[in-house]
Amino acid sequence: MPLPDLSNPAFAAYVAAAAILVLKMAAMAFLTAYRMMKARSGFRSPEDAKPGLLNPAPQPGQLERDEYVDRIRRIHQNDYENIPPFIAIGLLYVLTGPDVELAQALFALYVVSRLLHFAAYLTARSHEMRATLWTTGALVMVYMAGACLVAAARALQF
Amino acid sequence: MPLPDLSNPAFAAYVAAAAILVLKMAAMAFLTAYRMMKARSGFRSPEDAKPGLLNPAPQPGQLERDEYVDRIRRIHQNDYENIPPFIAIGLLYVLTGPDVELAQALFALYVVSRLLHFAAYLTARSHEMRATLWTTGALVMVYMAGACLVAAARALQF
Amino acid sequence: MPLPDLSNPAFAAYVAAAAILVLKMAAMAFLTAYRMMKARSGFRSPEDAKPGLLNPAPQPGQLERDEYVDRIRRIHQNDYENIPPFIAIGLLYVLTGPDVELAQALFALYVVSRLLHFAAYLTARSHEMRATLWTTGALVMVYMAGACLVAAARALQF
Repeated sequence: MPLPDLSNPAFAAYVAAAAILVLKMAAMAFLTAYRMMKARSGFRSPEDAKPGLLNPAPQPGQLERDEYVDRIRRIHQNDYENIPPFIAIGLLYVLTGPDVELAQALFALYVVSRLLHFAAYLTARSHEMRATLWTTGALVMVYMAGACLVAAARALQF
Repeated sequence: MPLPDLSNPAFAAYVAAAAILVLKMAAMAFLTAYRMMKARSGFRSPEDAKPGLLNPAPQPGQLERDEYVDRIRRIHQNDYENIPPFIAIGLLYVLTGPDVELAQALFALYVVSRLLHFAAYLTARSHEMRATLWTTGALVMVYMAGACLVAAARALQF
Repeated sequence: MPLPDLSNPAFAAYVAAAAILVLKMAAMAFLTAYRMMKARSGFRSPEDAKPGLLNPAPQPGQLERDEYVDRIRRIHQNDYENIPPFIAIGLLYVLTGPDVELAQALFALYVVSRLLHFAAYLTARSHEMRATLWTTGALVMVYMAGACLVAAARALQF
């Protein structure tokens, strides 16, 4: 069984995918902050409505939901619902010793589906397009989890 | 120290547990989508209220909170609050070289507690029952994190 | 390349950091429950408003948002937005064979920044202080993800 080493090309592809996905998640947090600052709105804690460097001229309603900010929060939520379990199962999938080209293709497909999902969500494309892109990534994750379960069950002699 | 290899039965049990938990999380997302489609309600983005394949006959109120959908969202939230940190610490726990039977029992207990938590939440059982099932899994996670911390502190000669 | 073994001091520091962060996340869940019980408020499921051991004397409004409880929920949310991807990328960062002292310093900085972020959020310090502490941790995570991406790209001969 291949050990987690970057000389294993399936593992290297996994590390690249995981790093891109973590950077993507971090970007959502920074983008939420950027939009909150630009709109001076969509804050969530009472203390954020007080005057300060980040809020020089407080106004009523700054603690209310703001769709411009909330859209990024929803994209971020979709990320933390999906990306941490994908990164976890992706590592275990690599440890089951999969076909290298298949593994690389699946990691690439997942990353591309998530980046397109972001683009579609950001620009408010149709629910159908967003759902299709989300489902693509979800099915990759389900496949990897299934492959891990089969390999583990075999090892445990079920 | 055992390397992460499926021939290690503690690691194989871990992989099986992680795979089941990832599939369980994915199932919550698909179940949310199923209930949204069935009720044509509980959408969250303005574009989802527009006519399309997923929403052939838009109606007012589709963007409002719908308890039938929201219950699954809450179960999903409980999953992403708990399962990613559990999968992370479970791997590290296996790497500390625990007793195999204890490790297997803890992984099984965690998975069973989460599946029962799902059943209790879905069918709106009492807060007490849900809290007991959640606490069982949380304590397993706390135990594993504690064991990891002790092992790491020893290795760092604290 | 160092294998994940506690005799590797970078890995031991990583395991200690991950264990502390998992315990910190679990503490947020227990603290939410504690505050809900103390205030008998901030519940979210209709069945939680029914009489029982956890709610001996139901009152109207128990299902409404309660800032005393919601503050902990927001801190918990900030945790699950940040900590699972950090734990994931931290492991991969260790596997790239970083300088041990740098790795240990980054893990310590991350843990300290998250504990201080908790203290600042709990006591409703200024948005500026909270943002500074959050950004510190986020930049550590971005640095590790960048280092992983560079190492993986090199291994894949990009």
